[in-house]
Amino acid sequence: MQLLETLKWRYATKKMNGEPVPQEKVDRILEAAQLAPTSSGLQPFKILVITNSELKAKIQPIAFNQSQIIDGSHLLVFAAWDNYTAERIDNVFAYTASERGVPVSTFEDYSNRLKGLYLSRPAQVNFEHAARQAYIAFGLAIAAAAELRVDATPMEGFDNAALDELLGLPQQGLKSVTLLPLGYRDAENDWLVNQKKVRIPKTAFFSQIA
Amino acid sequence: MQLLETLKWRYATKKMNGEPVPQEKVDRILEAAQLAPTSSGLQPFKILVITNSELKAKIQPIAFNQSQIIDGSHLLVFAAWDNYTAERIDNVFAYTASERGVPVSTFEDYSNRLKGLYLSRPAQVNFEHAARQAYIAFGLAIAAAAELRVDATPMEGFDNAALDELLGLPQQGLKSVTLLPLGYRDAENDWLVNQKKVRIPKTAFFSQIA
Repeated sequence: MQLLETLKWRYATKKMNGEPVPQEKVDRILEAAQLAPTSSGLQPFKILVITNSELKAKIQPIAFNQSQIIDGSHLLVFAAWDNYTAERIDNVFAYTASERGVPVSTFEDYSNRLKGLYLSRPAQVNFEHAARQAYIAFGLAIAAAAELRVDATPMEGFDNAALDELLGLPQQGLKSVTLLPLGYRDAENDWLVNQKKVRIPKTAFFSQIA
Repeated sequence: MQLLETLKWRYATKKMNGEPVPQEKVDRILEAAQLAPTSSGLQPFKILVITNSELKAKIQPIAFNQSQIIDGSHLLVFAAWDNYTAERIDNVFAYTASERGVPVSTFEDYSNRLKGLYLSRPAQVNFEHAARQAYIAFGLAIAAAAELRVDATPMEGFDNAALDELLGLPQQGLKSVTLLPLGYRDAENDWLVNQKKVRIPKTAFFSQIA
């Protein structure tokens, strides 16, 4: 089973060697993220793809100076919607209707139910919900990179507010949630590369109710 | 690239046919979830695997009577830690140290930093963080099922508190976040199976900063 082999191959690369990832591979990684399932199909997040060296250099100190930010050729920023709005929900269903060649009214009841549920909730609750969806895509992007034998470092350790400010995310109604530098491991200088991958044993991690 | 084909094949199955998924396949799906990367490797969630028919019948009304709950042979419940605690964090690093054959003191500084960060935060903030990690595994379980051509329905639409109560999750320090029934599509009776998969176009979903 390829996915299991892929997941066993990968690790959170601590030191990258600066070799660039071909754009064609990055495009496939992004496509995996785009195909991620999300709640009601809203895809309530965006992915920024940063290759600009100056910008990466500015992001590094915001992310505890982690070297993968600049040693990776592509830095993906997963940024979730800061809230659900009627306009955002309507846009998704208008697009879905047009792609499926059905009237937008097909989705009216469903869309109204979502609005009834989401629009009365605090922005923070909706943002948390959107962030969770972004994590599904984040996981699939990590898996896609590994399948292509591209290294990646899933990162939450950065100053979200400072990054949002730097990237102008508030003006776009977005808040950063995770980073994913893409590159290639510097195996000689990466302390983690040869450490055993450890996971909580099945008996503790799963609970069977038969 | 197998993952992209896999993700294009899958869809949120609305009607399953009752055919059971072989346990061997379920085990591989669970292994993919277990291999999911998580923040600091804490794996702050558990997966319940429910095959008991009576229990599934009790869960169905809690989940808007969705038929996949009973028509799928295995119901996975992803349940996140309700909080981070010193004991939970210590347990993970004690296990990691034993698996890597190093003294537990190897992780002392790192573990203390995590405790400094997490233990002062409200339980709700920590739960949300744990829930996000569970979504990474949730996404990989969905992909693993699809690779094995097992159908699945990612579900958030259920009464979390009622399910937690039914499954005794509060006593285990857990809160349910998602459901994933596993089974096989009933293609003749599933309205969604032949609908075009729609995703926000690349130009809107990605932002390139070169």
